This record gives sequence, C-alpha cells and structure tokens, in this order.
Amino acid sequence: MRIELFDTTLRDGTQGEHVSLSALDKILIAKKLDEFGIDVIEGGWPGSNPKDQEFFDRARDEEWKHAQICAFGSTRRRSNAPEDDPNLRALLEAATETVSIFGKSWTLHAEVALGVTLEENLEIIASSVRYLRSEGRRVIYDAEHFFDGYKADRAYALATLQAASESGADVLVLCDTNGGTLPSVLRRIVADVYDQFDCTLGIHTHNDSGCATANTLVAVESGVAHVQGTINGIGERCGNADLCSVIPGLQLKMGHECVSDEKLGALADLAGFVNDISNLDPVDRAPYVGRSAFAHKGGIHVSAVMKYPRAYEHLPPETVGNRRRVLVSDLSGRSNVVYKSDELGLDVSGTDEAARAVARIKELENLGYSFEAAEASFELLVRSMRGERVSYFERERLRVRSEMDAGEHHHSEATVAVRVAGHRELGAAEGDGPVDAISLALRNALSSFYPELGRIRLTDYKVRVLTPEKGTAASVRVLIEHHDGERTWNTVGVSENIIDASWQALSDGICYGLLHAGAKPPAEQQDGAARRANTTSRTALQASPT
Amino acid sequence: MRIELFDTTLRDGTQGEHVSLSALDKILIAKKLDEFGIDVIEGGWPGSNPKDQEFFDRARDEEWKHAQICAFGSTRRRSNAPEDDPNLRALLEAATETVSIFGKSWTLHAEVALGVTLEENLEIIASSVRYLRSEGRRVIYDAEHFFDGYKADRAYALATLQAASESGADVLVLCDTNGGTLPSVLRRIVADVYDQFDCTLGIHTHNDSGCATANTLVAVESGVAHVQGTINGIGERCGNADLCSVIPGLQLKMGHECVSDEKLGALADLAGFVNDISNLDPVDRAPYVGRSAFAHKGGIHVSAVMKYPRAYEHLPPETVGNRRRVLVSDLSGRSNVVYKSDELGLDVSGTDEAARAVARIKELENLGYSFEAAEASFELLVRSMRGERVSYFERERLRVRSEMDAGEHHHSEATVAVRVAGHRELGAAEGDGPVDAISLALRNALSSFYPELGRIRLTDYKVRVLTPEKGTAASVRVLIEHHDGERTWNTVGVSENIIDASWQALSDGICYGLLHAGAKPPAEQQDGAARRANTTSRTALQASPT
Repeated sequence: MRIELFDTTLRDGTQGEHVSLSALDKILIAKKLDEFGIDVIEGGWPGSNPKDQEFFDRARDEEWKHAQICAFGSTRRRSNAPEDDPNLRALLEAATETVSIFGKSWTLHAEVALGVTLEENLEIIASSVRYLRSEGRRVIYDAEHFFDGYKADRAYALATLQAASESGADVLVLCDTNGGTLPSVLRRIVADVYDQFDCTLGIHTHNDSGCATANTLVAVESGVAHVQGTINGIGERCGNADLCSVIPGLQLKMGHECVSDEKLGALADLAGFVNDISNLDPVDRAPYVGRSAFAHKGGIHVSAVMKYPRAYEHLPPETVGNRRRVLVSDLSGRSNVVYKSDELGLDVSGTDEAARAVARIKELENLGYSFEAAEASFELLVRSMRGERVSYFERERLRVRSEMDAGEHHHSEATVAVRVAGHRELGAAEGDGPVDAISLALRNALSSFYPELGRIRLTDYKVRVLTPEKGTAASVRVLIEHHDGERTWNTVGVSENIIDASWQALSDGICYGLLHAGAKPPAEQQDGAARRANTTSRTALQASPT
Repeated sequence: MRIELFDTTLRDGTQGEHVSLSALDKILIAKKLDEFGIDVIEGGWPGSNPKDQEFFDRARDEEWKHAQICAFGSTRRRSNAPEDDPNLRALLEAATETVSIFGKSWTLHAEVALGVTLEENLEIIASSVRYLRSEGRRVIYDAEHFFDGYKADRAYALATLQAASESGADVLVLCDTNGGTLPSVLRRIVADVYDQFDCTLGIHTHNDSGCATANTLVAVESGVAHVQGTINGIGERCGNADLCSVIPGLQLKMGHECVSDEKLGALADLAGFVNDISNLDPVDRAPYVGRSAFAHKGGIHVSAVMKYPRAYEHLPPETVGNRRRVLVSDLSGRSNVVYKSDELGLDVSGTDEAARAVARIKELENLGYSFEAAEASFELLVRSMRGERVSYFERERLRVRSEMDAGEHHHSEATVAVRVAGHRELGAAEGDGPVDAISLALRNALSSFYPELGRIRLTDYKVRVLTPEKGTAASVRVLIEHHDGERTWNTVGVSENIIDASWQALSDGICYGLLHAGAKPPAEQQDGAARRANTTSRTALQASPT
C-alpha cells in the first residue's frame, strides 16, 4: 500500500527541548525533506510567531520537487466567525496548498482548555474545516488527544471526527498527543474508527510510553494510510514518532511503499543533516540511522559478522545509508582490531601488530582515551605500530596566555616551538581563544613545509571531564574534529590539563590531515619520526596524561 | 500478574558503544538494582574476561536484600563433555544461585557460527542445561535469535526449546537478538510458543527496529512472565529493551506487579545513577525518566498544564520519580517564565519583570546562551531583574598562562583581580588546567570574605562550539556544574574565547552557591551590585560574547 509521509519536524519537532530553528534552517531542512521524497512538510504555525511567518514567505519563492508545504493552526476561536478569525486568516495567508488544523476530541479539553460546550466544540470544528475547504485548501484534520478522548467518551470522540469528515476534511489524523497509549489499545481503537469512516485515516504518536514507532506501525496494520512524525523523533517531551524508524519499518519490513529504494539509501544522511542544522548531538543508538546501529563490540558478534553479516544484523546497513562498524574497546579482541584495520586498508592479520595494538589500546583506554569517537587517532596508532611514518613534526614547547578585563576585552596568544626536518621552527598567533591560537600558531610554524595545511580546518571541539577514580586526579578528554573540504576526522587527547589535551588532539588531527593529503615528511624528519615512534616522542597517542 | 524482572545492564548493557564499567562500578550498580527491587541481576560472563570474574568474586561477599545474582555464559563447546567445559566451569565457579546460558535456535547459527549439525546442537543445549541443573543451579535458558530461527525453521526452533525444557531449564527466554522483529509478528510467535510449553517464558528484545519496549509489552500480553532489559536501554547496537520504560508500562498501564509503588517512585533516580556511574550523557528525551519527559515548551501546553496537568501528561511525573518542568526558550511566552520563576519561589506574576526577563532571555539565546541546561543562570537573571542583589564580587581582570614542553611537564597559572566591598583583591593559583587555576584563584581572592566557598566544588565542565551563522564568528558555550554536598547546579557562559566563557560560568556558579548558602554580600558591595545590575557590570548573564 502507498503510505503518505507527513513530516512535522519543523512544527512539532521544534517543541522539543534543545531544538531551535531559524527560518533559514527550516528552509534548508524542508529542501532536504523534499529531495528525500516526503509527501507533506508541515512548516510551522504562521499565526503563532514571526519566525514561522517568515518561513512561509520564503517557501513561496522556492521550487518544490515533490512535497506539499503545509501550514498548521488551530480551529477558530469560540467568539469569531471563521472568516474573521485571525488564526484561520494567518493559515490562508501562508498560501499553502494544504493546511492542517487541530481540534479537540477530548471532553476534558473542550470544556476545560477551551471553555466551550461539547456542542459548540463540534460546531467550531465543522465550521473551521468547511471554511478552509471553501477557500480551496486540502485540509488535514488533527484530532488532538483522540485516544484519551476515545477512552473518556467514545461516542463524543467519534462525533468530533464526524464533524470534521462531513465538513470535507481530506484526512482524519488520530493523535496520541500525550503519548500514553500502548500498542494493543491503540490497535483496537484505530480498527474501530476504520470501521466507521471512509475517509483517509492518519496517525500521530508521541513517545512518552516508548511506543511511538510501534504504535505508528500498528496503526498502519489497522488501516491508516497517512503517517506523521519527525526526523530523529525530535518533539515535545519524549518526542514524536521517528520517521527514520517508521519509514524503513513500513517499507523494508511491512512491504508498503513510501519512497524509492534509492532515496531510502539516503536516510542516514537525512538524519545527520537535520542534526547538523539543529545543532543537536546525534543519538548514536538510534535505530537504522544511528552511528551505533550496526556497530559490533562483543568479540563473538564481531567474528560471526565477519563470516556472515546476517548473523547479527537485521538488514544490510547500506539499505538505509548506514554502515557496519567494529568497535575498538576493552571488550574487543584481536578480531575487532583486524577488522577495523582492514576497513582502513591496513593489513595487520598474521602479524603480532594486532596484538600489540590491542594491548596499547587497552592501556590508553584505561587512561581515559576513547577511540570509538576518534577513529583518526586509532588509524595513526595502528600505522605507527606498523612502523609507518605518521609524524610530520616534533613538538618542543607551547605557551598560551589569555587575558580579559572587566569589559569586552579578551585576548589569547600562543607560541609554539616544533622541529621539522631538523629545523627548529617557532610560530606565534593570536586567536579567538587559546585553542584557536594554538591551532593558528602551529600552522604558522608548519606552513612553509606543508602547503597542504591550507585546506585543513578545525571544525569542532568537545571537552568532557572524566570521572575521577580512586585517587587518580580528574582528567579531561578533548575531541577535535577537522575537515578538509571532503573528509571529516576526529582525534582525541587526554590530560589533567585541557590545554595539553587540546595540543595532543590538535597535533594528531593535523598529522592525519597531512597524511591523507599525501604530504611527505621531509627526509630528515622521516628518520626522526621513525626513530621516535617507539621511543620517547610525545604524540597524542603515546602521551601519558599524568 | 507478577512479572519477574531480569536486568542485564551489567552484561548486555556493557556491549553498547561508549559503555565501559569497572568491577567496582558493576557492584555499585548491582547494589542499586537490588535496592530498587530487580529480581535477577545478570552480572557478566565470568568465562570471558577478568573484570567480570572480579565482579563475581566481590559479589559473593556482598549482602543482597532481594535480588538473585546471575552469571551468564554459552552452552558447552562441541568437543567438550559438560564437566570438562571451561565455560560451564567458570559459570559454576561464579557460585551464583542462578545462571543464564544461551544456545542457538537458528539453523544458520548452529551450522555456520558453531559449525555443528542440527542434531549436535540439540544435544549441546540439552547436556549443558542438564549439567548446570545437576549442580543445583536455577537455569535461565536464552534462546538466541529465537525469532529469526522460528521464521527460518519453526519446527527446529521449537525443538531447541524442547531440548532445554526437557533438560530442566526453569525459564525459556525468547530472544530477538538482532532486534528485527515487529510487534505483530512477535505477538503471533510468542502466542504459538505459549501454546506448546508449560514452562515460564521470558522475553529479551533489542531496539534495532525501534520496537524493543513495545515488543516486551506485547510479549507479556501473550503470556510471558519474565522480562529482560537494561537500565536506560543501553546495549549492543541500538540497545536493549529499556527497563525504565518497560516497568512503568507493565505496572502503571497494564496492571502487572513488578516493584512496590514506592520503589517505582525511585525509577528516575535509578536511571540517573546508572548514567552517572557509566559516565554516559543522560538521554533527555527518555520516556518516563528523561529530563524532558515532562517538560513543556509550547505556550499552549504550558498554560493548559498549569490549569490541569493531565491535559498534556500521560501520568503524574512523581509516580516514576520525575518532575514537571517548564522550558524557557524562544518559543516561550510569559507563562513559561512565570511558572519557572514560581517553581524557584520567585513571584513575578503581575509585574513587568516577566516580560523583561522574556525579552532578555530571547536576546541572550540569540547570542548562544542556553538556559534549559543552566537553570542557576536563569535564576540569577530573574533575581537581578527583580532588583535582588546576586553579585558577590566584581570581576576586574583575569590572566591565565599555560605552558607545556615536549615531555610530561605542563603548567597552568591564573591571576584574578576582583573587587569585594570596595576592596581590590588579588588571587593567584596554579591548577591542573586553566579552568581549575581560575577557579582556585577566584577562591583565593574571595575566601576571606566568604567562608561558605569551602563547601562549593566544581564538578563538571562541558564545552560546545556553536555553529557559526552567516558572518558571525564561531562562539563557544561552556556549561559548568558545581556541587555543595547537597545541591548541584549549572551555569552557562558564552564567548568567542573559551577562557572568557569559562570565567563567566564560573563566576555565576560561585554567586549561585553563595546565594543558596545564605552568604551576605558586604554592605558596600551590595550597593555596588545593585547599582551595576542594570548598568555596565559584566556578569555572565549580562555579557555580550562579541
């Protein structure tokens, strides 16, 4: 069956904690949703704030390949005629082909929240829908709190649907607004409604009981043909149904038609894009699209997956644009390191390098290093174990000074001393902050040797204090992300001192970038690097944080 | 119905990415689980690593109020007699009352992963279970990949259960190891098994399809009386069924008996404890126990919840030990600020302070401040809007210097100049890093005025680079957590310079701590603070990061 996909990331999604999108952010996300094949994109509530208004103004000038843009609003106010109601007017002024409006299904909400009689509520729903239809709009009617309303007063909840349906609503959406309904109860209620109405039914669930995805799938089994949700499940409280779980469930497991297989292969990319634009940390554990969704850690799992992926994967990761990962951690054995190295094109099987790498990793993880989030540091470690030359300079000394007064003035300055090819090079720079200053000073010192540095940028910086354990002083873990226009990589540094940890991670990040840009260490530096790799040089990977 | 709760946080949970627990961590978590009323605690796989071995060694010396401790392992190896099998021996040596062992239900796994005939596999299961029973253990048999096995070859999958059951297994646990099964398929399969066996059935699900919680609840509806899961749903790939969603679903919504109502009221605390010990960031959106689970952001929701909580809450937050929160953000209107201030005991209704606070918050959030994660900063802002004196010192100047060489040496030193009660005070300190040095220097400068500082400790520090928008330089947001032995609070600072942002958040954190310790600003400082509150002083909340 063809299922209509209705995305409310830009409306219900923004009601989630930590979510804040500008009008431009919304346009960027909407373009991506359109590209992906979403059928209806709910852009916001034009009557409620200027940001949403601006979105619809901009959206009118955009070209949309596939999606209908939809404006959201409430039914008219009690005292207004539909044509005089500011909210309905704002909905029409958004000038979208499709509108969604919500009305009250639950007697409690009609009487307490709206303060109207139950009869009045039916008339409010009917007249609002009728008016929007008479203005030529496709009307999606959101029956707010439908399941709670049904449980409280089945006949009345059905009467509200009847009012919307008779007035011409194109879709009746059953909303589990409070997210409290469990799958078997929801199944029974949807089936009952399906028996009474000919109109297309929709489902809108929230995750307060941890069942938003399951409830959406169960509703489709009971006859629903329109599903609402958000990318990554963002939304009020515990969030909405996550379209990134719902779409592959419907399409790959239940055989329904949502988007083309090719588009489905871009699902993980879509999820990542929305996280990036919303500035939200990705949920690694997210089904299908999370970084960990096909990540294997237990030694038994890893060796079986290497033989036969289906052994521990419910579907091939590439069908949803994800990839298999093997985690390197203190649970891991040799096979994880071999697999991971293999992935990087480094053959360490049949050597004792793998065993040495495992031993070294365990030792460093004990100190607080984490290679799961710093695969570039892992690669440098394995390469150095193989005797490759991965060091492009030797760090000698770093000084950073920051000053601020009581006003707006602040200032950071770094000087670094490094050795490259036997030369001692100094670099100094001012920066927006100490890490920026160190990064710039390091570039100054190295730029005449490595023009490749021009393309490498520091793009993210994260710090976490590690919980101190019995007597050991607290240390901090710094993760630094670099980007060179094509690839993005992460490195790690650990120290009691944030500046020291940053210096380690920065140096590793630059070495990794130079390595993949094909930069050659100058001859003398090569010898130095090889000599130091197993002795006393202090690169991030060989540092002890004490 | 009474449902047996089986927790595998310490075993399957540790297979999740980013999860690493020491033997001591495991003991701490196990004690908490026992306290909460979990029936069986799976502690680890004694045969697989020394950490798990150590856990069982320690566990034997502990007193357990309620829980059975359970050791996990695989069935015997093909070539070993049960009594000579090192894995079964390790299981017995763990000296637990209960053991869990997993066997293969799926022909694919028996033939490819184990490399045995289907007959041999049945015999391996039977002899392993029989041996453990003969040694007096309660045996929980985990039928790995049961649902995939059933789909591939129903008769064989049932035969593996039969082998375990006839050999004396006390519980047959149906595992959706790859997490690929959807609720209606799972329901049908569980019901079929239930018809064939008299033995207690259990369920073990993974979240790869986003249905782990729903699948667990559906299984109980189909006759299962033993549920497995982990706290916060941590586990391999997308994680396991989250007991923090499963338990309230079973108990509050389906009427089953799991733990006492009083213990259920400690659920959010248990979730937080496991996050703390595992050093995992809490998932704010987690059903029931997440920080956002009862957080209201949309203006309409907030005003309705204030009238009648059931309007937008599926159950009272305190039943699971959580609490209602109202978010302050750019979506929020006056009612959010009024509610939030009310929560803090600050009456701002009927004044124009609320409107001014909303305006100021919107302005600061535009600059990158986030008050959702820094409620202490919000409180200081509202108090200062009310004309209260919340400033305990005036910052004049800060200098920080960090130096490191090529070896182990690193050094950070800070000097601060502040004014307290008209006196200019200098403080200097060395620290583990620059932020530590600033924190110590500030204390040195202030300690003679405020002995209350002795109890206040800096406990966490987080940094995030904010995505630069059109032309504005990237800025960093620092969140700092302090603790005084009783209460924990968070403050925020934003600047292009991490040191500057840290200084803001540190100062706010100390002011909040002094305020709640009842410290009185010296008379002269009070006047100064009141004067500066609306003029030029640069506290974190009044700073502009440009």
